[in-house]
Amino acid sequence: MSAKPGAAGRERTHRLVDLIRRKRDGGELSAEEIHYIVSRYTEGAIPDYQVAALLMAIVLKQMTRAELAALTEAMLHSGSVLDFSDLPGRKVDKHSTGGVGDKTSLILAPIVAAAGLYVPMISGRGLGHTGGTLDKLESIPGFSVNLSLEDFRRVLATCGCGLIGQTAEIAPADKKLYALRDVTGTVESPYLICASIMSKKLAEGIDALVLDVKTGSGAFMKKIEDSIFLAELMVETGRRMGKKMVALITDMDQPLGNAVGNATEIAECIDVLHGGGPDDVRDVSYELAAWMFYLGERTKTVDEGRALAAEMVRTGVAAEKFRQIIELQGGDPKVMDDTGRLPKAKNSLEVKTPADGYITSMMCEQIGTASVVLGGGREKKEDNVDPSVGLMVRKKVGDAVSTGEPVFTVYYNSDARMPEALKLLESSFTIASAPPSEKRPLIHKVLQ
Amino acid sequence: MSAKPGAAGRERTHRLVDLIRRKRDGGELSAEEIHYIVSRYTEGAIPDYQVAALLMAIVLKQMTRAELAALTEAMLHSGSVLDFSDLPGRKVDKHSTGGVGDKTSLILAPIVAAAGLYVPMISGRGLGHTGGTLDKLESIPGFSVNLSLEDFRRVLATCGCGLIGQTAEIAPADKKLYALRDVTGTVESPYLICASIMSKKLAEGIDALVLDVKTGSGAFMKKIEDSIFLAELMVETGRRMGKKMVALITDMDQPLGNAVGNATEIAECIDVLHGGGPDDVRDVSYELAAWMFYLGERTKTVDEGRALAAEMVRTGVAAEKFRQIIELQGGDPKVMDDTGRLPKAKNSLEVKTPADGYITSMMCEQIGTASVVLGGGREKKEDNVDPSVGLMVRKKVGDAVSTGEPVFTVYYNSDARMPEALKLLESSFTIASAPPSEKRPLIHKVLQ
Repeated sequence: MSAKPGAAGRERTHRLVDLIRRKRDGGELSAEEIHYIVSRYTEGAIPDYQVAALLMAIVLKQMTRAELAALTEAMLHSGSVLDFSDLPGRKVDKHSTGGVGDKTSLILAPIVAAAGLYVPMISGRGLGHTGGTLDKLESIPGFSVNLSLEDFRRVLATCGCGLIGQTAEIAPADKKLYALRDVTGTVESPYLICASIMSKKLAEGIDALVLDVKTGSGAFMKKIEDSIFLAELMVETGRRMGKKMVALITDMDQPLGNAVGNATEIAECIDVLHGGGPDDVRDVSYELAAWMFYLGERTKTVDEGRALAAEMVRTGVAAEKFRQIIELQGGDPKVMDDTGRLPKAKNSLEVKTPADGYITSMMCEQIGTASVVLGGGREKKEDNVDPSVGLMVRKKVGDAVSTGEPVFTVYYNSDARMPEALKLLESSFTIASAPPSEKRPLIHKVLQ
Repeated sequence: MSAKPGAAGRERTHRLVDLIRRKRDGGELSAEEIHYIVSRYTEGAIPDYQVAALLMAIVLKQMTRAELAALTEAMLHSGSVLDFSDLPGRKVDKHSTGGVGDKTSLILAPIVAAAGLYVPMISGRGLGHTGGTLDKLESIPGFSVNLSLEDFRRVLATCGCGLIGQTAEIAPADKKLYALRDVTGTVESPYLICASIMSKKLAEGIDALVLDVKTGSGAFMKKIEDSIFLAELMVETGRRMGKKMVALITDMDQPLGNAVGNATEIAECIDVLHGGGPDDVRDVSYELAAWMFYLGERTKTVDEGRALAAEMVRTGVAAEKFRQIIELQGGDPKVMDDTGRLPKAKNSLEVKTPADGYITSMMCEQIGTASVVLGGGREKKEDNVDPSVGLMVRKKVGDAVSTGEPVFTVYYNSDARMPEALKLLESSFTIASAPPSEKRPLIHKVLQ
């Protein structure tokens, strides 16, 4: 073992073993014990190997709701908790569990800010086969997501919305725990996922949070029961901490919208903010914005919220708000008028249907992985993202197709990466002679 | 995390995470994968935190028999495997899972060696509430258990028996894994216990092994099902590796014999080797020796083995053999004639019965802990053992008692330790007006 505890350390080790054994045997840890573990681990006073064993026991023996609340709270208070109470208005945010073509943050943030609420949004990078809000934003020339908390506050106060990445001040316990989970096979626990997400989101100083929990072949949770279970945990945990909460279980059984990648997705967001773009992206964005309006007490009902979202787009104020955000965060605001200013890949190629019929299913994770393979995401943490590559989904589930029609247009720079990407895309959809009997809803369930 | 893997390290980490996740999800690891983990961990190429997570997954998800065999073999081959094939005779050993007053090794080793088999016995220290063969031997003035492997071989060749402690050459993987298990709550797994015991015992270069798996209130496995399960795992694992195996499930619901401690137990062993001593100690020792004779092909049947053990004691050759072992390992052989030469505590005190009736049960672990508290064992690894302290059990389960009769005689040096020890002892037995309806057998079961 690397750490050789001294006399005091020995006592600590001893005590921690008892806590690990209790959890292993299905017992419960007290809030005080969980705070002790999280704070001492963050300080470096408890070794990784003890926490690794405890995490595995949690993955396999679950947590009680009281333990989960204590864990989330301990992680939240391991760093700074932002306070925007001096800003005159409700602060609301949305968090998505991640998907393919899932770009709603960049549409709803300006919509909601344009209507007078504050959206202090701290986002993540692409993870696995899913894209990340920060990577997408960085495809806008000049746009910086690395603002200091002071600059973040200034941008938020000026235009009602700021879009930044995780900082060292926010939930450092989560950063350390996640790095350990990543290498010890302890990522896949709804309890640990909930605590990780909620500790960061609650540090944003918000009054209300709308959760977009994805379900289907492109989500981390493929089964709807699992998505609902995670959503329930997060809603309950947020509510225990005095936040207004709702979770929407939304469909991720095929990409959302047409654009998958970074610059391509920004262009699609700009289309939607200008009143165009694909129906599914618009509908999910409006629905999430509507709940933000309702929880943020901007509207009396969700229906009114949906109408207000549409109004913000129709009148052009949402697009104007996005232009303002881009400008305040150092980006080129002219992309709003000309998406041709966004990075462009050198080559494109079409993936065509091998037969007539109907698209009956899409292996959405495979499509996301194809975009990563092209360079649109990271296979290793150290990889750079190529903002210009990606793909457009030309046909969606239920669409009729004739042989040779394009299903995907692929934008690429490296010939070497194409065989693997094409293999993934060519096998990512099924065609049958009849359309699928049931259409999956965009919104599966709302949990309040 | 402390270890920052480089490019090659990253690949390893990656692969190991997949193995951890597979085990976590109830899958099986191949022999090649297990050998990889054990050998790389022993070299220091895999960090503690990954192995800690894997160990916890094993504790909670178990192992298949093939995995267990591979783990035992990998741990065995992490160090030297002794080879005594040049010595003209079978090599047999016994291993006990540990108990209170469990001193049979020191009786059967000289008995079996006196009859012409070789007993290359590598023993352990006291663990928790149980005593350890090495600690007991060290109460003989001058006796050294720290022989080099070369000296061990010489003693074994000269007198047919050597009694030493674990060396750095034997199963280093077990040493490293046990240290990690001890601080990560992953000790209590029959699979990991089996691999730990068997990897060390199989390194002794033996042909046959008799296992004494304890069951009852003074054993690590309190429930007989658990003792049987562990015994089955060990018998099967040993047999897979070509060893003759048997396991006896023996009773540890009260101390074995009367003496508990170190010098006190040595004195009791000498009594038994001289034909005296308590019946239960003699019976269990003869039974274990009988199986060693049978598996070592010294006798045709176990019954003949039992008779041979008695013969070795009756004729005095077993006592003579123990004297020879003591002399060869640097100890004072005159203790065989005068146990008064063993270390003696300054004070003694009797714990008496508060009522008339029958002893109906003994909380055997509590009695063992009392001996540890007196200084006869270690509360922390760094503690020194006081060889002179301990206790004599004057009444056993089923005995009739009158108010004020002594149940224990306590030998002690430190007044400060007495309140805790007395509290443990006074509450360690129950008295009722009728004797217990059933007498527990000394040998519960034999697994071949």
